[in-house]
Amino acid sequence: MSENNNERDERLNGRKNDELRPIKITRDYLKWPEGSVLIEMGETKVIVTASVENSVPRFLRDSGKGWITAEYDMLPRATDRRRNRDRTRKIPGRSMEIQRLIGRGIRAAVDIDNLGEITIKIDADVIQADGGTRCASITGAFVAVYDALQMAVKKELIPSMPKYKILSAISVGIIKDVPKLDLCYIEDSNAEVDMNVIMDEDNKLVEVQGTSEGKNFSRAELNQLLDLAEKGNRELINYIKNLLAI
Amino acid sequence: MSENNNERDERLNGRKNDELRPIKITRDYLKWPEGSVLIEMGETKVIVTASVENSVPRFLRDSGKGWITAEYDMLPRATDRRRNRDRTRKIPGRSMEIQRLIGRGIRAAVDIDNLGEITIKIDADVIQADGGTRCASITGAFVAVYDALQMAVKKELIPSMPKYKILSAISVGIIKDVPKLDLCYIEDSNAEVDMNVIMDEDNKLVEVQGTSEGKNFSRAELNQLLDLAEKGNRELINYIKNLLAI
Amino acid sequence: MSENNNERDERLNGRKNDELRPIKITRDYLKWPEGSVLIEMGETKVIVTASVENSVPRFLRDSGKGWITAEYDMLPRATDRRRNRDRTRKIPGRSMEIQRLIGRGIRAAVDIDNLGEITIKIDADVIQADGGTRCASITGAFVAVYDALQMAVKKELIPSMPKYKILSAISVGIIKDVPKLDLCYIEDSNAEVDMNVIMDEDNKLVEVQGTSEGKNFSRAELNQLLDLAEKGNRELINYIKNLLAI
Amino acid sequence: MSENNNERDERLNGRKNDELRPIKITRDYLKWPEGSVLIEMGETKVIVTASVENSVPRFLRDSGKGWITAEYDMLPRATDRRRNRDRTRKIPGRSMEIQRLIGRGIRAAVDIDNLGEITIKIDADVIQADGGTRCASITGAFVAVYDALQMAVKKELIPSMPKYKILSAISVGIIKDVPKLDLCYIEDSNAEVDMNVIMDEDNKLVEVQGTSEGKNFSRAELNQLLDLAEKGNRELINYIKNLLAI
Amino acid sequence: MSENNNERDERLNGRKNDELRPIKITRDYLKWPEGSVLIEMGETKVIVTASVENSVPRFLRDSGKGWITAEYDMLPRATDRRRNRDRTRKIPGRSMEIQRLIGRGIRAAVDIDNLGEITIKIDADVIQADGGTRCASITGAFVAVYDALQMAVKKELIPSMPKYKILSAISVGIIKDVPKLDLCYIEDSNAEVDMNVIMDEDNKLVEVQGTSEGKNFSRAELNQLLDLAEKGNRELINYIKNLLAI
Amino acid sequence: MSENNNERDERLNGRKNDELRPIKITRDYLKWPEGSVLIEMGETKVIVTASVENSVPRFLRDSGKGWITAEYDMLPRATDRRRNRDRTRKIPGRSMEIQRLIGRGIRAAVDIDNLGEITIKIDADVIQADGGTRCASITGAFVAVYDALQMAVKKELIPSMPKYKILSAISVGIIKDVPKLDLCYIEDSNAEVDMNVIMDEDNKLVEVQGTSEGKNFSRAELNQLLDLAEKGNRELINYIKNLLAI
Repeated sequence: MSENNNERDERLNGRKNDELRPIKITRDYLKWPEGSVLIEMGETKVIVTASVENSVPRFLRDSGKGWITAEYDMLPRATDRRRNRDRTRKIPGRSMEIQRLIGRGIRAAVDIDNLGEITIKIDADVIQADGGTRCASITGAFVAVYDALQMAVKKELIPSMPKYKILSAISVGIIKDVPKLDLCYIEDSNAEVDMNVIMDEDNKLVEVQGTSEGKNFSRAELNQLLDLAEKGNRELINYIKNLLAI
Repeated sequence: MSENNNERDERLNGRKNDELRPIKITRDYLKWPEGSVLIEMGETKVIVTASVENSVPRFLRDSGKGWITAEYDMLPRATDRRRNRDRTRKIPGRSMEIQRLIGRGIRAAVDIDNLGEITIKIDADVIQADGGTRCASITGAFVAVYDALQMAVKKELIPSMPKYKILSAISVGIIKDVPKLDLCYIEDSNAEVDMNVIMDEDNKLVEVQGTSEGKNFSRAELNQLLDLAEKGNRELINYIKNLLAI
Repeated sequence: MSENNNERDERLNGRKNDELRPIKITRDYLKWPEGSVLIEMGETKVIVTASVENSVPRFLRDSGKGWITAEYDMLPRATDRRRNRDRTRKIPGRSMEIQRLIGRGIRAAVDIDNLGEITIKIDADVIQADGGTRCASITGAFVAVYDALQMAVKKELIPSMPKYKILSAISVGIIKDVPKLDLCYIEDSNAEVDMNVIMDEDNKLVEVQGTSEGKNFSRAELNQLLDLAEKGNRELINYIKNLLAI
Repeated sequence: MSENNNERDERLNGRKNDELRPIKITRDYLKWPEGSVLIEMGETKVIVTASVENSVPRFLRDSGKGWITAEYDMLPRATDRRRNRDRTRKIPGRSMEIQRLIGRGIRAAVDIDNLGEITIKIDADVIQADGGTRCASITGAFVAVYDALQMAVKKELIPSMPKYKILSAISVGIIKDVPKLDLCYIEDSNAEVDMNVIMDEDNKLVEVQGTSEGKNFSRAELNQLLDLAEKGNRELINYIKNLLAI
Repeated sequence: MSENNNERDERLNGRKNDELRPIKITRDYLKWPEGSVLIEMGETKVIVTASVENSVPRFLRDSGKGWITAEYDMLPRATDRRRNRDRTRKIPGRSMEIQRLIGRGIRAAVDIDNLGEITIKIDADVIQADGGTRCASITGAFVAVYDALQMAVKKELIPSMPKYKILSAISVGIIKDVPKLDLCYIEDSNAEVDMNVIMDEDNKLVEVQGTSEGKNFSRAELNQLLDLAEKGNRELINYIKNLLAI
Repeated sequence: MSENNNERDERLNGRKNDELRPIKITRDYLKWPEGSVLIEMGETKVIVTASVENSVPRFLRDSGKGWITAEYDMLPRATDRRRNRDRTRKIPGRSMEIQRLIGRGIRAAVDIDNLGEITIKIDADVIQADGGTRCASITGAFVAVYDALQMAVKKELIPSMPKYKILSAISVGIIKDVPKLDLCYIEDSNAEVDMNVIMDEDNKLVEVQGTSEGKNFSRAELNQLLDLAEKGNRELINYIKNLLAI
């Protein structure tokens, strides 16, 4: 990476340090799934689908409870260099972590205990990666799952819409000692601290994952990052509220 | 499937028996790959990318020859019901057959013996399936590979554009004794004979794969199907010529 | 391969271009299976067994229909150089294609819809390969399955012999512009076009798979190859009729 | 779990909410490894070894940098019910996450950029699990790696001890609205919020992973948990300082 | 290995040729399993657990018979050099052989035909290897299984203790023409003949596995080895009798 | 199995208790391998090939030593019921044990230390199983390897025939307290003790594997079994001497 003297103040495309990239969520993106979106955060593009299955995993049978689970993958050329497909290898640790995070996040958003015995399978497939794919997947998954639940009500698979909290996720990080919101790939590669935050519509935290990438961080820095993440998530949640008209 | 008395004469959307579905190929669909298209044949949608790697498989080292290979996969919800990802299972026989067919087809279109030691990796990922995905993948792959080769020339990975023949692929089949061109999913499910034909710009055959799906077929029927396929492939090749302005 | 000026006219062992290699099918080759043959086409030798199982795959349960499936493999030294066993690797694409072809072919020969709920498992194991192993496997499989069905009637697993069409398979190809029947390994390696044709006793086609191996081919050439294949398959079907006395 | 009216105030064995379980680290626990400990946190017991290899992964060759990586596993009966061994299945998501966390944590503790081209492989094998195994693995790993580095200096594999920060890890959680330090298994199963915190000897954070397990949490609650974790980690780091006499 | 002129007469630590290494079996070594021991034979240390499951494999259902099976593994640093975990590879031939041997041996010690439909799963995990790990695993497994059966009686999973024969296992070998009892790793590496013998409390043989490691052996030598093994096994069986007070 | 009062005295086909089944070894059974036999022991039939490769495993490079290794498999219908192919599953424990035994046995027969850097790969593929397949594989492997070594001399891959000892293998067992030689499948299923013995031309033992299958055995019984095995192996070694004219 070439040095940039003004990096403290300037970002690609003139974004401010506390500014999100342009967000766009296209609903009903595919023909077959019960819920499906294309979510774009800047140049990051993820297809997220939510499939309703009329059964639950063994550990929930006859419990009246539902389940939500997720898988995450990338097309081989979602990235700068072609990655081999996972299908011929064991599932990579990074993908595993991300899909567990997505599932955990969305289960925290929907009252699955009173859902009835259906399973929602989320598939997040990154078609173009430019940083923040896990957060975009979570935000997109909320919308896809919302639409799938509406469809499940319509098809009478469940009696009514379960309780839910809108949620979204955003990445934040510290680059050259400056906290920044919604890192793109090139920023993410240079971050000294990297954090992903999932937040709900009541400003409550669902997941906080902060990691030193070369510089251990103080409680004060942690708080700066959490402030930025709160701002970003509030904007995303407002976007979703408008989109879904709820 | 509900019966349709007029099926001999009518098709979904009023298509004629020798009529292709609407075709649309979007070039430069993704940011990172050397070549990438979204090909749409009716409701079938496939992202096809072509990645250039500056090396060849072991069996071609120091031969001066290049190589082209392909992988084919579907998103889990490309289909009516969610399919499990291949990554946790051995690669399915159907996908294996298709990706071998794509690779073989495109290698027959490009003069790889005089290409120089690069490898083109084709990735065909079906995001929405409605019949004919393997043929759409091949047709889309030709365009993606063409663009990738142009890029390779530009980046001076190869001295000049290799010789090539434009090619395309189309499916044909017999339904209730009537030969039809470019089957959609619901037609394909009811076909008695199913055939895929890859053809080049000189009307020469690259691959012919005809299969009885319940009714063995005569030489006369085979010829009817080949006539239809020739018509469809000619139209596709003309579309490509216009698109690439060659 | 050394050059052979007379290759247009002469073949190994003085065979004519439209002449099959010597064919020999030994029935009841093994002690345990319901049907088993050793099929020899020249130096190609394949053990084909047909095993009757008193159940069907899940998708056919309670349908009254039967099922036929196939697996294909080679001993490690069936070939000039030792190949690693498949058991320590994913199943190779070539084997996958061949076993799907065998299963599809034989299912087209037997009226499985009225068979009753049994499964016939075909195992084609090449012990010596010299070209045409997939076609020999199909031809041998027909005989092994016929014998297994007779045994199933005798053991009262099914009430009576189902309807069937005798079928066989043969390879044809173009070498230095000359179409030839029943290619041995060395011919196959030099073929410009390679085609496998499965035909039934009424001269109807069950499967046609023609592939350019370096030279795309015209409709006229395709027809020459189909003529040769028809001649070869007729001779094989006559051999089977005599062998089975049907 | 049976209800416990006093759960707000009392814990198993009369522990206070901000009290660690008894900690014991046995150095040189095994004969062969360069560093090896048995770490006991209450009834949780983990064997952690650190193996020195005189090479680095491909991406670090000729960089002069070293590498540290980790694997985590459990004996089948480390837990209440026998778990199948991972060796016959793909690596479970939970283990994957944990071993990535261990590796990342210890790499943040040691100046690997100036280490020289050696790799330290950490193996954390839980022989008895009673909550907090990932944190015990990290704390134990620091000691095992410290001993392995000392050994590497002694064997002249590296010129001198690299810079390092002592670190440790501890779990905290919220049970019935009460934040508690160092959860045992039965507490962990009932936690509404679960957090793991890795901290260095300067009270800087290396990793913060907080997760809602049924109740989303406020910034205030997050801060209470971080306070507890800081207290616990300070005690662990003091224990290590005494143990290593540094 | 350096030469040792006195090797015919002397062993490490002054052991005699017919002398066992110090044996120590710690019962109830772990908290969760029904039976668990740490067995130490000199520097070889194996954790052996026995888990009771209230079911049997399919082939024994409704037979009234029980089953005993075993798995064997090593920690990566149980040995001088770190071995990769089996979990990322197919199970190694050596481990497979050993765990089959353990299972077969213990099934010969316990009257599983009159046990009732429970399964005992033995897990032998070597934490430190210095020769004789398979024999230590078998001897330890007997004690762990004995304790698990006692527990199963206590928990009323089975009505009463089944009949059993105490058994143990020991290795013997020939080094520079001298037969020796209970080889440590360095002796085992130099053995010309290697034999493992499982014996029961009536001096009957359960398993004899003798292998030439460079020198084929006579019946006379075989008998010398069997004499040594009998002596060693008698001592081990006496140790177990004292330990279990039976 | 039906009871047979005379079982103590009579065997299938009137064989005596110390009598081998008819043995037949066909050399040069296949076209491509350097050595290949069909070995028949009664109804047991095994194709054994020996392939010469002009390299050695990594651990022997630049040592001047050669290597011999083996793989063992069965056709799916070698047995009464069809077994699934190993290729889609991990390698079964039984096959693993057998192929390790074959490799170890033949390495003890040939002076591989002075062989030169070639590898002989043995493939034993059972086409019909009726007891004693592992022993037949070893006996057949000796002949196949002998022929492959002769071929390697002829092709000047090695300067001269290495030293070797002829060896063979035979199974013995105790059925209703009566020791018997060369068990067929039905006898093997009823054996109380089962033993495989590999012996060389000097009557020295290469491998002894005796296993209780329900009745632990005395030293006296062991000796009776070894006497029978010696008789059987002597006859097999004489057969080989005549066959190879050595």
